[in-house]
Amino acid sequence: MIKIVVDCFGGDHSPQANIDGSLVALASLPDLYLILAGDEATIRAGLAGHSYDESRVEILHAPDVIGCDEKPTDAIRLKRESSMVKAVRLLRDDDSVSGLVSVGSTGALVAAALTRVGRLEGVIRPAFCPILPTLDGGIVGICDSGANVEVTPDHLRQFAIMASLYLQNVYGVESPRVALLNVGVEAEKGDTLRQETYRLLQQTEGLNFVGNMESRDLLSGKYDVVVCDGFSGNVLVKTTEGTALELLKKLKKDIFSRTIYKIGAALMKRLFTDFKSFMDYQNYGGSVLLGTSKVVVKGHGSSKAVAVQRCIEQAYRAEAGELGRKIETEILKYDHYEQ
Amino acid sequence: MIKIVVDCFGGDHSPQANIDGSLVALASLPDLYLILAGDEATIRAGLAGHSYDESRVEILHAPDVIGCDEKPTDAIRLKRESSMVKAVRLLRDDDSVSGLVSVGSTGALVAAALTRVGRLEGVIRPAFCPILPTLDGGIVGICDSGANVEVTPDHLRQFAIMASLYLQNVYGVESPRVALLNVGVEAEKGDTLRQETYRLLQQTEGLNFVGNMESRDLLSGKYDVVVCDGFSGNVLVKTTEGTALELLKKLKKDIFSRTIYKIGAALMKRLFTDFKSFMDYQNYGGSVLLGTSKVVVKGHGSSKAVAVQRCIEQAYRAEAGELGRKIETEILKYDHYEQ
Repeated sequence: MIKIVVDCFGGDHSPQANIDGSLVALASLPDLYLILAGDEATIRAGLAGHSYDESRVEILHAPDVIGCDEKPTDAIRLKRESSMVKAVRLLRDDDSVSGLVSVGSTGALVAAALTRVGRLEGVIRPAFCPILPTLDGGIVGICDSGANVEVTPDHLRQFAIMASLYLQNVYGVESPRVALLNVGVEAEKGDTLRQETYRLLQQTEGLNFVGNMESRDLLSGKYDVVVCDGFSGNVLVKTTEGTALELLKKLKKDIFSRTIYKIGAALMKRLFTDFKSFMDYQNYGGSVLLGTSKVVVKGHGSSKAVAVQRCIEQAYRAEAGELGRKIETEILKYDHYEQ
Repeated sequence: MIKIVVDCFGGDHSPQANIDGSLVALASLPDLYLILAGDEATIRAGLAGHSYDESRVEILHAPDVIGCDEKPTDAIRLKRESSMVKAVRLLRDDDSVSGLVSVGSTGALVAAALTRVGRLEGVIRPAFCPILPTLDGGIVGICDSGANVEVTPDHLRQFAIMASLYLQNVYGVESPRVALLNVGVEAEKGDTLRQETYRLLQQTEGLNFVGNMESRDLLSGKYDVVVCDGFSGNVLVKTTEGTALELLKKLKKDIFSRTIYKIGAALMKRLFTDFKSFMDYQNYGGSVLLGTSKVVVKGHGSSKAVAVQRCIEQAYRAEAGELGRKIETEILKYDHYEQ
C-alpha cells in the first residue's frame, strides 16, 4: 500500500477539485491509500454522494488554510493548524506515509518541505521538475523551474542527475537526453555559470548529456530533460504556457469575429478540442520537488480534478519507482557537494 | 537625408532579401539614402530589373562574408574585407552615415559595434531590444535579449531608460510602462539582482516603472518595456517565438490529417493567414542595439525582404527621432555609472 497525503485546500478550485481528483486516482490505483488534509466537515461534505473504497481513505482534520498572498515563512510558522502544515508534519512524522500533494502556496510548500521534511542524503538543493508535452507526442522535464533562483554548477549537475532519474523511473524514458538551457548551442556560449556547468555535465558518467539547448527548441522532442537555474527555468515554463494560452485565446476570439469562421471551426471542433487538451497543463500534473527525503508534488494553483489526479499519480509512481533511493545512490557517487 | 548602410550578406536569404527589402524601404521613405555593402557584381545583379531612385543608392564593395559559425572576434579581426566589417568601418568613419542594418552573425556584429563604433556617453553596456506583438494589437520591447548575459542593477536601469526612450521616440508610445522580468509580481521576489534592480527602478524619476512581470504576461499588452538580463531575455524571446511557431506547425499538421478539417480550414483561410502573419517575427523587424554611438539594427538570420525593410525603417526612425541624443541626455542625469 502506498500512502499519500493530499492537502485539500489552497487552490482556486479547492477543496472540491482536490477531493474529486483524489477519488479518481484512488479508483485507478488499487494499492493507493489517501489521507485528505483539511477541514473535516467540509471534506466529508465533498465526499458525500461519491462511491469509493472507504477503507483506503482517511481525513486529517486541519481547520486553517494558507493563502497564496501570505508570506511563506510566517505562514508555515504561524498557521500550525493549516491543511498544508499538518500535511507536511504528517509526512515528516509518519514513516508509513510516502508522499504529499498540494496545490497551495508554492513558497510556503517549499519552505515547509525544506525545514520539516528535509533533503535526501547528498542533495544540496531540492528542485522543481515540471513536465511539458512535446510536439512529437513525448514529454520534457524542466529542472529547476523556480525553487532556486541562485545556483552553482554543482547544483545544476545535481538537478540534471535527479531529473534524469525522474524521467527514467517515473515516465519510463530509457536514457533521458539531458540538455543545458543556454543562449546558443555551442559549448562556449553563455555566462561563466553555463560554461562551467557544461564542462561538469560532460564529465558526469551515467548522464546522457547532449549539449546546450536554445529555448526555442523546448517543445521539439529532441530533449527529455532541460537543466537550468530556477530563474530562467521559471521564465521558460511560464512563457511556454503563457504563449500557448494567449494564442489560443486570440484564435478563439478571431473565430467568433465572422460567421464563416464559426462554420469552419464547427467542422474542426474535434481538432480544436484535441489541440486545447494537448496544451492544457492540467493534463500533465504538477511539479515534483526532487531531492526531498519524501516525495512532494506541487500542482498549479488553478488545478482542476484531473490535475490533482495526475499529481497523485506522479507521487505514487515516484514512490513505486523508488526514486528517492535511486537519487541518493547516484548523487553519492560524486564527491564535490557542500551541505 | 538619412544615410543607412545595409550589410547585404550573412543571412539565410542574402543577398536578394536584403536588396529587395532595401528597395521597398527606399520607395517608402523619400529622404532615405542607402549604401549596400557586399560584393559589387552580385549586388548589381540583384538590383538589375528593379526600378528605383538610383541617386539614393550606392554600393560599398566588399568581396568577403562572415559566416554564422565563425568565432566572432576572429572573424571581425581577420575578415577585413567582409561586408559586415566594411559596413561597420563606414559607420564609424563617415559622419554622414547614421545607421547600420545587418542580418549576419550576431556575435560578430556586437563585437564589431562595440570595438569599432563605440558607446554613447554614459552608457555602460549596449543592449538589444527586440519588439514582439501583444494580443491587444500593441507591441512590447524586451531589453536585453542577449548582448549581456551577466549584468548588474546599474546595467538593468540603463536598459530600462534606453528601451523606454526607444518605445517613446520610435514607436510613439507616450509613457512606456516598464516592468522588470521576475518569477513573481511581488517586490521581494527573485534573486539579489532582481530585488536591488526593483528598488533602483522605483527610485528612477522619469521612468514609468510598474513593477515585476511574470513571463506568462509578456503578450498581455499590460507592459511596453520588459527589462531583463540577456540570458533570461533570450529565453523569454526565443521561447515565445518557438512556442508560437511549433504550435502553428502542429495545427497545420493536424489540419492535414482529416478531410473534414481541411474543408473547415479552407473556410478559415483568411483567419489562419492573419494569425500566421501576426505571429511572424518578420513583420516586426529586428533588434536595435541600444546605446551604441550610432544606430545598429540586427535582423534575424532568416530575415526575408519584409524583415530587412522593417529593420531599415527602425534604423531610420531611431535617427529621425534623435534617439541617441535623448539616451545620452537621460543617462547622464544619473551619477552612478561605471565605465
